[in-house]
Amino acid sequence: MGASIDPTMVDQMGPLRSFLVRMGLASTSDHSSVVAITLFVTLLCACIVIGHLLEENRWMSESITALIIGLCTGVIVLLFSQGKSSHIMLFSEELFFIYLLPPIIFNAGFQVKKKQFFRNFITIMLFGAVGTFISFSIVSAGAMLLFKKFDIGPFEIGDYLAIGTIFSATDSVCTLQILSQDETPLLYSLVFGEGVVNDATSIVLFNAVHNFDLTHIDGSTALQLFGNFVYLFLTSTALGIGAGLLSAYIIKALYFGRHSTDREVAIMILMSYLSYMLAELFYLSGILTVFFCGIVMSHYTWHNVTESSRITTKHAFATMSFIAETFIFLYVGMDALDIEKWKMAKRSPGTSVGLSGVLLGLILVGRAAFVFPLSFLSNCLKRTPNSRIGFRQQFVIWWAGLMRGAVSMALAYNQFTRSGLTKLPENAIMITSTISVVLFSTVVFGMITKPLIRLLLPQSSKPGQDNTSDPSSPKGLHIPLLGNGEAVDIDGCHVRRPSSLRMLLQAPSFTVHYYWRKFDDAYMRPMFGGRGFVPFVPSSPAGAGNGDAWAR
Amino acid sequence: MGASIDPTMVDQMGPLRSFLVRMGLASTSDHSSVVAITLFVTLLCACIVIGHLLEENRWMSESITALIIGLCTGVIVLLFSQGKSSHIMLFSEELFFIYLLPPIIFNAGFQVKKKQFFRNFITIMLFGAVGTFISFSIVSAGAMLLFKKFDIGPFEIGDYLAIGTIFSATDSVCTLQILSQDETPLLYSLVFGEGVVNDATSIVLFNAVHNFDLTHIDGSTALQLFGNFVYLFLTSTALGIGAGLLSAYIIKALYFGRHSTDREVAIMILMSYLSYMLAELFYLSGILTVFFCGIVMSHYTWHNVTESSRITTKHAFATMSFIAETFIFLYVGMDALDIEKWKMAKRSPGTSVGLSGVLLGLILVGRAAFVFPLSFLSNCLKRTPNSRIGFRQQFVIWWAGLMRGAVSMALAYNQFTRSGLTKLPENAIMITSTISVVLFSTVVFGMITKPLIRLLLPQSSKPGQDNTSDPSSPKGLHIPLLGNGEAVDIDGCHVRRPSSLRMLLQAPSFTVHYYWRKFDDAYMRPMFGGRGFVPFVPSSPAGAGNGDAWAR
Repeated sequence: MGASIDPTMVDQMGPLRSFLVRMGLASTSDHSSVVAITLFVTLLCACIVIGHLLEENRWMSESITALIIGLCTGVIVLLFSQGKSSHIMLFSEELFFIYLLPPIIFNAGFQVKKKQFFRNFITIMLFGAVGTFISFSIVSAGAMLLFKKFDIGPFEIGDYLAIGTIFSATDSVCTLQILSQDETPLLYSLVFGEGVVNDATSIVLFNAVHNFDLTHIDGSTALQLFGNFVYLFLTSTALGIGAGLLSAYIIKALYFGRHSTDREVAIMILMSYLSYMLAELFYLSGILTVFFCGIVMSHYTWHNVTESSRITTKHAFATMSFIAETFIFLYVGMDALDIEKWKMAKRSPGTSVGLSGVLLGLILVGRAAFVFPLSFLSNCLKRTPNSRIGFRQQFVIWWAGLMRGAVSMALAYNQFTRSGLTKLPENAIMITSTISVVLFSTVVFGMITKPLIRLLLPQSSKPGQDNTSDPSSPKGLHIPLLGNGEAVDIDGCHVRRPSSLRMLLQAPSFTVHYYWRKFDDAYMRPMFGGRGFVPFVPSSPAGAGNGDAWAR
Repeated sequence: MGASIDPTMVDQMGPLRSFLVRMGLASTSDHSSVVAITLFVTLLCACIVIGHLLEENRWMSESITALIIGLCTGVIVLLFSQGKSSHIMLFSEELFFIYLLPPIIFNAGFQVKKKQFFRNFITIMLFGAVGTFISFSIVSAGAMLLFKKFDIGPFEIGDYLAIGTIFSATDSVCTLQILSQDETPLLYSLVFGEGVVNDATSIVLFNAVHNFDLTHIDGSTALQLFGNFVYLFLTSTALGIGAGLLSAYIIKALYFGRHSTDREVAIMILMSYLSYMLAELFYLSGILTVFFCGIVMSHYTWHNVTESSRITTKHAFATMSFIAETFIFLYVGMDALDIEKWKMAKRSPGTSVGLSGVLLGLILVGRAAFVFPLSFLSNCLKRTPNSRIGFRQQFVIWWAGLMRGAVSMALAYNQFTRSGLTKLPENAIMITSTISVVLFSTVVFGMITKPLIRLLLPQSSKPGQDNTSDPSSPKGLHIPLLGNGEAVDIDGCHVRRPSSLRMLLQAPSFTVHYYWRKFDDAYMRPMFGGRGFVPFVPSSPAGAGNGDAWAR
């Protein structure tokens, strides 16, 4: 595990360890990580069981349960170590970005309802790119204006801009936990899609903050920023699509399935992880890459593998993602009570609270400033009233994207600490404020979201209709038996073979989808496989009854 | 990843990195691990694809392919860095014992043919405990006698005994790769089972070497060693069985399946890993623990979960194990060309070769010295001629257990290096000799094993018959539909309800199995679930045709 072991913690474990060392061979450095891993795995088991027991509760979600269990463990460790240490592993960016985030985002891409996602593509891009930039500007400007009143040491302009980036990073992981793809597909695809695109924007802005001379911003800088974003977005997406297509081609060409389900699953896992790591290697947006890799894999690769590989990948990816999500919230909860940082920030107890309040306010305002205007803009672009975003939905989009999570924590650590220690008091206070914002927004905003959706959108709990081509669909497995139907089923109305150019003007996304299907059928599927193009021998003709094997 | 990054490697990557750093935000220490992980994941993909293409080859196995690819990569890195460094990550015991070994051994326990394993339990214990001790004594004594001729610096008696332990550690991972459970079930269960028990023996011997005063060994020391072994064996087994039963009980009591396949799979993964980590925490044999945890989970827990969880766990565990195995061989191959160790040992080029030859000879003799006598003893104990071990089988058992792998490497590093560096020349020479033995035994002995089995046991390629209760069985899923049959099908002859005590004398293992089944049905299954005790709604009555969903 990439997380470094807190040396003070190891000291606290002294009595137990010396007992253990007396018992047998003692390799000290190994053993402290054994202690930490054992504790974390135990807590993960506890989170799953307790989260399951609390599932019926309308206020709690799994993430909040994990966060609270993490906090309680922090308190217990704090008491055991007589107030010296509350955490067992220091928060590690490497652990978070290299091991925990990729499976979560990949699984989101793999299980996302592709039609829903691509139909709202323009709105998602608006929110993710323009919206993030608006939010970043407002938070940065607000921090610059309001922080001066707190007298918390010298902040440079770069720090303020970094604060803007940190608190504009929507937490995709929180979104996945709070919004349900089946109950509110539109909101899910908008808020989650925004979170994915947001990552590319954040990288561009973060780089800009570090590289550009920001004291005089003119047209060319803005153009350069925009060019950077387009470059990053296109290369990251292309890398993800390329990795997905390569995996589809390898599995189709070599036809692993004849021999081994395990090899197919291994290739899918490794190729998707490779796409993320390559993106990180070339300083692209790994989140965008692995998200698109997941989408391509669910469209092509998933249909080339054996039936048992399909079931295995669907559930194994979801399980990995679930464990990683739980781990992150547990970790953030445990890390929140890091006593050293709080001691550093202690000399001004009111300041940290005030600062957190200001930041929360800025987040609220910054998000409102783009969700409502951009939703209006998006509604103007759309001709069909069905796909417009109502005011209540806008409100939920605003609210559901307010949570800040592990991504904000990781960015804050990156900006305000070097090697995990917070030496300067102004940096310590920024870290503690970030932790407060993350805890408050996740617990309070998170708890309110579920009841809020039920209150504002009571009709939303109908199941999605257009999910035939996704691994997440109960029907996905057996559709190939029904032939490669061309019926385009969007919003409940069957659109059969649109025959005139008028279509394009009336409903551009339908037309794009139609031509994409033609291209897909003519060139992509013969090459990369996918639904209906691989010799598929149904295991049992009565297999349609197997639906409950797919119940999640 | 626990592996530490080799600093010299990072220096070699200079030009590429500085190019990357210029491109964007540069967090140096993170980035070198990104480079290493990307390379490893790429190589893993290459191993799977190339291993698949070479599958028909009678000489190659996946492990040898991975080893050779690792060696080639080592050479390429060596050339790129102008002879300064050949490996990207130092061999890390933590990575090996904490992350790679548990999934492999757990999967072996999960997929093992339980009846075959427990029928040969006495023989396995003889091989694993007595056999390892005999081999250890012979290798230690041989090293003590023969090493003096080489003039390689001062070795203490503890070092010689450690050499005995290191080269008596059968490599379970190699066994899994070379022997096929379906083709040679008896040999597989004997050699692999021996490898699992061998781990407990090795820990006892290793502790004894470090803690006991070995200059005068008398009856009480031997008794103490024996007591230690029994304690370690029983506690480790009990911990594994306890963890398995707890997982079965949790899943049965809470009945996760109603809600989420992912949670069930997560609980199974986490509980099995927890059992391993707890064993490591209390200095027990994690390998024994997680092996028995796998057996109990496949007997109880696996039958309590949903149908899709069963398929997912079966394949996901196999995939994790497959990736970990491939990673280990790749890693050993890359580490073999560690130029620093070879430089240290260079001043006497013939010594290292001679030493490796002596060690290989001792391994051959040490293994022969227990396989043939103990097989004879085991044959005397058995009354039915069917289950006796023929001479050809004994020969294959002797040969298939000769390979030394990552376990030997890890033990050698633990004994002869501190913090991964080999300062003393006599230690460096021991490390290079161990690497040579591992490479030679895996590649040469491993390549010969497959053809050897075909030559000596041509009738062995019939599929196993008695695999109805295992996850590895194509029939396992649908057996519950046929009711909880009591027919005990062993060796092809149906033994229906043995009714007299004469049975016990004639065929003790049959009788033990009969009473175990009665106990299992009366007390264990009602409590912990298992085959036939969980409300199971068959998804399709024609489901028996679904067999190919289980083809591995």
